[in-house]
Parts: sequence; C-alpha cells; structure tokens
Amino acid sequence: MDVLTIVGVGLIGGSIGLAVKRRGLARRVRGLGRTPATLDKARSLGAIDEIHLEPAAALRDAELVVFCTPVDQIADQAVRFASLCPPQTIFTDAGSTKALIVERLERDLPAPGPLFVGSHPLAGSEKRGPEFADPDLFQGRCTVVTPTARTAPTALATVQQFWERLGSWVRLMPPREHDRALAVTSHVPHLVAAALATTLPPAWRELTATGFRDTTRIAAGDPGLWTAIFRHNRAAVLAGLEAVAAQLTDFRRALEADDGAALTRLLTQAKEVRDALGS
Amino acid sequence: MDVLTIVGVGLIGGSIGLAVKRRGLARRVRGLGRTPATLDKARSLGAIDEIHLEPAAALRDAELVVFCTPVDQIADQAVRFASLCPPQTIFTDAGSTKALIVERLERDLPAPGPLFVGSHPLAGSEKRGPEFADPDLFQGRCTVVTPTARTAPTALATVQQFWERLGSWVRLMPPREHDRALAVTSHVPHLVAAALATTLPPAWRELTATGFRDTTRIAAGDPGLWTAIFRHNRAAVLAGLEAVAAQLTDFRRALEADDGAALTRLLTQAKEVRDALGS
Repeated sequence: MDVLTIVGVGLIGGSIGLAVKRRGLARRVRGLGRTPATLDKARSLGAIDEIHLEPAAALRDAELVVFCTPVDQIADQAVRFASLCPPQTIFTDAGSTKALIVERLERDLPAPGPLFVGSHPLAGSEKRGPEFADPDLFQGRCTVVTPTARTAPTALATVQQFWERLGSWVRLMPPREHDRALAVTSHVPHLVAAALATTLPPAWRELTATGFRDTTRIAAGDPGLWTAIFRHNRAAVLAGLEAVAAQLTDFRRALEADDGAALTRLLTQAKEVRDALGS
Repeated sequence: MDVLTIVGVGLIGGSIGLAVKRRGLARRVRGLGRTPATLDKARSLGAIDEIHLEPAAALRDAELVVFCTPVDQIADQAVRFASLCPPQTIFTDAGSTKALIVERLERDLPAPGPLFVGSHPLAGSEKRGPEFADPDLFQGRCTVVTPTARTAPTALATVQQFWERLGSWVRLMPPREHDRALAVTSHVPHLVAAALATTLPPAWRELTATGFRDTTRIAAGDPGLWTAIFRHNRAAVLAGLEAVAAQLTDFRRALEADDGAALTRLLTQAKEVRDALGS
C-alpha cells in the first residue's frame, strides 16, 4: 500500500511499524500521537517515517489506519478522524476488547466514510513504549478479527491480509465472543496475577522463585490501560472471576477436608489443560 | 567430602549430583532410588557414580545424605535409614515444606545418630526426572535452611556450606516461618495457577498468549508431589488462599461498581510489588 497511519506508537504500534517497514508493506508509515518524545523514539527506531501531532495531515491520504491507543480512546478517535480521511479508508485497531468499540463504530461512523473492522493481535508484553517494539511480535501469533454482518467485505479482506503479512494467523470471531474468550484467556488472569502479587510482603520477596515470578509477571502491566480493558469488558470479566473463584473454592474444600484424592483430581484436571498448551 | 548419598534422583536430586560432580565436591556420589530406569538415566548423565536400590550399601559410609523425595516420604525414610549410617552422618533434604519434617525428625531420629537440618533450595521447575537436571540450577538462588534450638552446629555449618558451594546463597529461617512464607510465594500461586488453567475451555486454547501461559505454567507440575505439599502445609496454604480471595473480592467490588479509580489503585499496588521483583 501507499500510506499506512498508525495512531499511538507504543509497544504495539511501534511493532506494527517495524514489521511493516521490514517487510516493505507500505511506502510511507505515518505515526500520529500526542507525545513528541514517543514519536521521535519510534522514528529513530525506524518504526515510522513521519511524525504527526495533528490528525489532518496524518490521515488525508491514508489507505489503512490502525488504532493502537487504549481501548477507551479508540472509538472516540475513529469517529473524530472519520471526516479527515478519504472515503473508503480502512480503519482497524489493536484493542484488547472488541464489542463496545465495534458497536459504537457501527453506529457512529459516517456513511459513506471509513470502513471499520475490529482486530486484536494476541501479542504484547507487560512493557510499554516503542523502545520495546519488536518487528517479529506478531510472527506465529493469532490475531482475532471481528467482522459482523455490517462489515464491508473489502475491509475484512484487507485487514485479514494485513495481519497475515505481519506473520500472524487470523481467527474470525464475533466481537462479543472475542470478549468472553479474552476475559478467560487474558483479563481474568491479569486480575488474578495482580491479586497474588499484592499478597507478597516485602520481607518475603527474596523467597520467590520462578513460579511466583511467572505467575505474577503480567501484574507489572500498565494500571491505566488495564483499568480501561476491565471496564470495557466488565460482564465477561466478572463471569470469569466467578469461575476462578468457584475453582478456588473446590481447592479450599478439598484442603479443609484434607482430601488427598480430591486435591490430586483437581490438580490433574489443571495439568491436563496446561499440558495441552505446550510450554 | 568422600561420600555423598542422594535419595531420589529426579530433577532436584539429579541437579545436586551434576553440580557436586562438576565442582568436585565429593569423591563418590551414590544415588538411592526405587526406579532402576531413573537411576540409570541419572548415572548416564553423570549425576551419580553408583546406583543403589537398597539403602544399606548406599548409606554405610555416607557423610552427607540429601533427601530429594516427595515431602510426605522424607521423614519416614530418614527415620528408617538412621540405623544404616555411621553416627554423626549429616542428613538434609530439599523438601518444599519444613515444619512437619523437622518436628518429626527432631522427635524420632535416634540419639546418638544422624544429625538433621532441614533445607529447601528455591529452585526447580514444573518438569520431572533427571533428564531435566541442571548443574546450574542452584546458581544464584536462595536456599532456605531451617535450624532450630536443637540443631547441631556442625550439621548447620556443613549443610550451609554445601548449598553455598552449589552456587546458592543461604537464608536461615525457623521451619514454621519458612512454611508460612512459602505458602505465599509458591504453594498458593500453584493453586491459583491450577484454578485458572481449569477455567480454559479447549475451544479457546489458541486464544491464549504469553500472559495465560506464564500465569498457569506451574499448573503443569506433578499432581501427586503437589498434593503432598499442600497437605503438609495446610494451615498456611488455607490462610494464603484466604488472602488472595480477599484481594479478588476487592477487584470484584471495584468492577461491579465500575469504579475506575479503585481498579487503578489496586492494579498500581500490585504493579509496585511485582516491579520490585524484577523480571
């Protein structure tokens, strides 16, 4: 393509830029953001060709715009930017939640106007900023793309191909199913990791080994970004929390009863699930 | 030393053997176990010099005996083997719980007879067997040693020096304090990881990324070994589970109230604890 615009050049936006540049997928990559230092960093790393603090110049001839901003900002920005783009510009995003974003944009984007399809690359880290960007971040990873009955087939094809060219493989899912699944595979684990981390007194820090470190690693993620994710996916996260709490209650009861067979059965079920994932 | 006997040559016992051999810390390393194939494997990897299925020959001239068997077997074996060793033989172990083992052996080991001091190297993995042994497993890791008022100073000095020579640094703690700390840093995280893993339906496996994998990795541990650990440390594990459940309740309430400030505050507390651990 000719012009790709990345809105928000942090870890994800920066990684998209690096991957696009390395693979020669766009003639110009424009980075749009609010923080000059972050944009400078992204350009110096080769993730973007141009720095933009104002949307008009960043968007006027964009073919594809990828929103890599926090989930509570994506829909507002997309609506605000719609009139600045050529009609038929394709919008997608990298947000960790999909239903609220997709529903809002299907309602509020002008028609004719940009064509939106939601995406979520299942890649990332607890780190922030373009300095942690990685051109291979999407290699071999699943990207969920969430078309609906109202999605333009051209937008879907372009967005699917875009993630595939970055090395991802694409799974299509309805936005609400995506959110229910990600509550279980990502959002609830984050809350549980945070709860665990909080129970550690400073005096016992040096008594942690790889188990504690692995289990709580994602608790180092950015609190503001994650607050927005949890609020966007409240119902599914609450349901997922309840499922984990029920499992923990089963463990507690087996332990209270000193029931070795029940404990082994519960641990065996968990091991079977975990073994199926590989390391 | 002249003769070291390792009881149980799995991941931990095998790693001790490899580390001792590589550093030249013992003239002979005897491996005592129940499974010929495991002992053969340990010998072929160079973790032990001799294979023993019968304790008498393995123990008759041992200076140091390290029990690397499941926590519910250590004390029974140590009592049974006491009469087979020279008096003043030093016994230690690598068990993940300490109070029940130490209390039982202080009560039941004959005097004169072997001198016991409990140990727990904070190293390991969800893997099992000598094929995963690693001579550097203890390098830079903490080993907790748990002397009491009844511990012989010579035994403490020998055992402390032994772990230090394997590359570990030693922290001395009373057995019950060890168990309370390890409930928080290891045993409860294992239960929580297992509970999380169990909530994942097969259809959503491919929607897991590094967050879920890290958070649940330890759930692949051996169910039998962990059942024994949980039963050995029941009270502290139940208390630790309650602390995590209380934290999860705080998260749930903040989410039910859609209280972004409270969510961010809870996540920030967790992040501060996790950041203090390093990666």
